[in-house]
Amino acid sequence: MSLRGRDLISIRDLSKEEVLSLLASAQKMIPFAEGKRVMHPLANRIVAMGFFEPSTRTRLSFESAVHRLGGSCITIADAAASSMRKGESLSDTIRMLSGYADAIVLRHPNEGAAQLAARASDKPIVNAGDGAGQHPSQTLLDLATMHEAFGTLAGLRVVLLGDLRYGRTVHSLAYALGVLFGVELVLTSPPELRLPAELRQELEKSGTKVTDEPEIRKAVRDADVLYVTRIQKERFGDEGEYRKVAGSYRIDSHILEEAKPRLVVMHPLPRLGEVAPEVDRTPHAAYFRQAFLGVPVRMALLDAILAGAPAAE
Amino acid sequence: MSLRGRDLISIRDLSKEEVLSLLASAQKMIPFAEGKRVMHPLANRIVAMGFFEPSTRTRLSFESAVHRLGGSCITIADAAASSMRKGESLSDTIRMLSGYADAIVLRHPNEGAAQLAARASDKPIVNAGDGAGQHPSQTLLDLATMHEAFGTLAGLRVVLLGDLRYGRTVHSLAYALGVLFGVELVLTSPPELRLPAELRQELEKSGTKVTDEPEIRKAVRDADVLYVTRIQKERFGDEGEYRKVAGSYRIDSHILEEAKPRLVVMHPLPRLGEVAPEVDRTPHAAYFRQAFLGVPVRMALLDAILAGAPAAE
Amino acid sequence: MSLRGRDLISIRDLSKEEVLSLLASAQKMIPFAEGKRVMHPLANRIVAMGFFEPSTRTRLSFESAVHRLGGSCITIADAAASSMRKGESLSDTIRMLSGYADAIVLRHPNEGAAQLAARASDKPIVNAGDGAGQHPSQTLLDLATMHEAFGTLAGLRVVLLGDLRYGRTVHSLAYALGVLFGVELVLTSPPELRLPAELRQELEKSGTKVTDEPEIRKAVRDADVLYVTRIQKERFGDEGEYRKVAGSYRIDSHILEEAKPRLVVMHPLPRLGEVAPEVDRTPHAAYFRQAFLGVPVRMALLDAILAGAPAAE
Repeated sequence: MSLRGRDLISIRDLSKEEVLSLLASAQKMIPFAEGKRVMHPLANRIVAMGFFEPSTRTRLSFESAVHRLGGSCITIADAAASSMRKGESLSDTIRMLSGYADAIVLRHPNEGAAQLAARASDKPIVNAGDGAGQHPSQTLLDLATMHEAFGTLAGLRVVLLGDLRYGRTVHSLAYALGVLFGVELVLTSPPELRLPAELRQELEKSGTKVTDEPEIRKAVRDADVLYVTRIQKERFGDEGEYRKVAGSYRIDSHILEEAKPRLVVMHPLPRLGEVAPEVDRTPHAAYFRQAFLGVPVRMALLDAILAGAPAAE
Repeated sequence: MSLRGRDLISIRDLSKEEVLSLLASAQKMIPFAEGKRVMHPLANRIVAMGFFEPSTRTRLSFESAVHRLGGSCITIADAAASSMRKGESLSDTIRMLSGYADAIVLRHPNEGAAQLAARASDKPIVNAGDGAGQHPSQTLLDLATMHEAFGTLAGLRVVLLGDLRYGRTVHSLAYALGVLFGVELVLTSPPELRLPAELRQELEKSGTKVTDEPEIRKAVRDADVLYVTRIQKERFGDEGEYRKVAGSYRIDSHILEEAKPRLVVMHPLPRLGEVAPEVDRTPHAAYFRQAFLGVPVRMALLDAILAGAPAAE
Repeated sequence: MSLRGRDLISIRDLSKEEVLSLLASAQKMIPFAEGKRVMHPLANRIVAMGFFEPSTRTRLSFESAVHRLGGSCITIADAAASSMRKGESLSDTIRMLSGYADAIVLRHPNEGAAQLAARASDKPIVNAGDGAGQHPSQTLLDLATMHEAFGTLAGLRVVLLGDLRYGRTVHSLAYALGVLFGVELVLTSPPELRLPAELRQELEKSGTKVTDEPEIRKAVRDADVLYVTRIQKERFGDEGEYRKVAGSYRIDSHILEEAKPRLVVMHPLPRLGEVAPEVDRTPHAAYFRQAFLGVPVRMALLDAILAGAPAAE
């Protein structure tokens, strides 16, 4: 496998072997991400952070990854202060950035922006979320969290909980778990927020076992992983309806009573009320580990894409 | 003394010996802060700047300190662009940051935020101001400015001028000067803005000589240090009353006529009209030196907390 | 020539020899700007970016230049989040910055701000645009683009097109091309937006050949360089008038039909509709190269001003 010089727009750009290779590399990066060991494969490399929509968590973990590998960042942290405010096209902005940096991490409110950027840029583009589109490094860190907890992805039973209809994160994850790794998926969502039919068909066609289990307690009982997503108020016309639904998809220690001892609870964060703080103190809580793993996963990714910088003269 | 791995929430966390050790270390850092000498004890270290309230001066001097020591920064420069905007708790945000960096410098509008952050984080927290609470590195640089000017803190007579009631800066400074170093304090403030009675009692109980001298000219006459603070309009119901009070606490060369030749005028900056620009050209003006000393003081602090990073492989 | 420790406020601060020396140095910087070769003359140097008005392109290319040379940045990316918001004077803000960094790159909405900053600072100030005033590194990169394309500036015929009245960029460029290098200038602008009479007189007095050619097609026919600027809506009382004028100064492949094969089309970017995207695919398009050359030009400039940092101990 070589990702050297390649764009990463969607998790679908990667083969199963490439994903496994990145997960293995990310695992090796952990002591470097913790600052316990040091190497500088990105020395003398500049990575541009083009965040045309705020996303502190994603931006800072990419910046941390760059610094841990010895590189530098130039950063656009919000669209309001950028040339795009003056009406410049995304293509022009990206061509400018590609003259200033060795790779571009792009976050943009519009679906398809990363693909458009990749066409404009002669430097690699890493999609860090484009609207309702893709966010492949999030999928990789989700996979890395499960892989670290169980040593494998094979044979897991993963419950996807909450908003399965609009959640960008959960679509890419369902694809990767099901189509690439044959993981069994259990879908637990309110009827209004079911997984899109197309994606479900694709999963089933690939041989993935997909079942619906609207009752959380039942779903949790046999799960290895419980992947919780946020249910957004904007999806409901009526505040009362929202509260009822959101309230019934809240994870607390009571709901986890019948869980397997090794059940891993994940959440892409930020969380509002979806996972009660009391869960933090249980061995099930993996969401902070998941957030941390964003750093070694992004280190592995940037290292694979940018490896081989020249040394100082 | 070892500050290694410790939080710094309040100046009260430090003993007199620890403060003196930091001042001595800061003095040694000066040529490094000026860029005349170079060392890299923070090489391969990442310090997160979590500024959930804007404070350019404090943020940039911490960032300068990190760079002068060879480290890297990841920065949240304002709360509006962060995950907290989405309703995330401070604890969750801090746990995320503690996965991305080796220490966190925190500025927050709410009193007590730094203590809360320290409980959530497994990395050291440096409080860079939490609302009406603490801002210990400001106190350290205030002390460093006096210590540099006189070679000692012992035996000084320090006038605290202006808003002594609401000023976070002046409370911590009064504590450190009085309780830790037995410095004589002269309080010059409008009646509405007197030092809180509790703090005054604590000072007197510790044996600090505290006197009131409402007349600026008299206060200045025997002072070694004149520490000027800003009087904020918001403290007065009536604009006219504010103008009268603020105007009568303005330092100009006229007021300094009877001062000791070595009187040192300090101000935490930014200043509005409290110190006339003509004072800048007198030998009394120490406020720009004070601002600069923020860098070596913060270098000494970060070096003490983070010393001992591993080298590159 | 030595720029070491000097301010750069205006292109008029530089002699012809100094400009040529910077262009030669910028040319040598290109492989370093591309990340193909590496050197660190700014190691252990901190450059403050004081952007009190947003300008992503200028800020990022300066930051890229600093990183490519091994230095670090501390950044104010917008005035709203800075101490100036609290009413601090520019002088005080600059004095603070000069205590935190080895040089200051300043962008400010007010004409004359850079000169004022230079008086307040004991560190070099590089003017990165002060209102309707100067932006000398833009002029240098404009010259570098022409110099690279033709190997010389001597004997060129340059068309300046669009808003020649209010455009800061075009005034400095006209001065440098005409007064320093005796380049022939052709002025193509709507009557409302003619080059200021004073500047025209200065050019003619210096022996520069200056002609008006209101018809774009005629102007293009014999041009070596077509320098396009944006016509801003704010300059017209009437939207209809604006549209008519702006529309008639639009460059597309049709207009370029009779151009010389080696004609170079430049634009300071961002562009709106002034240059049609179809021009990007012609050999005439030099504006993205021009944007890129901002990096090696700013590297040459910062290297000249800051050369000679001490090594780590």
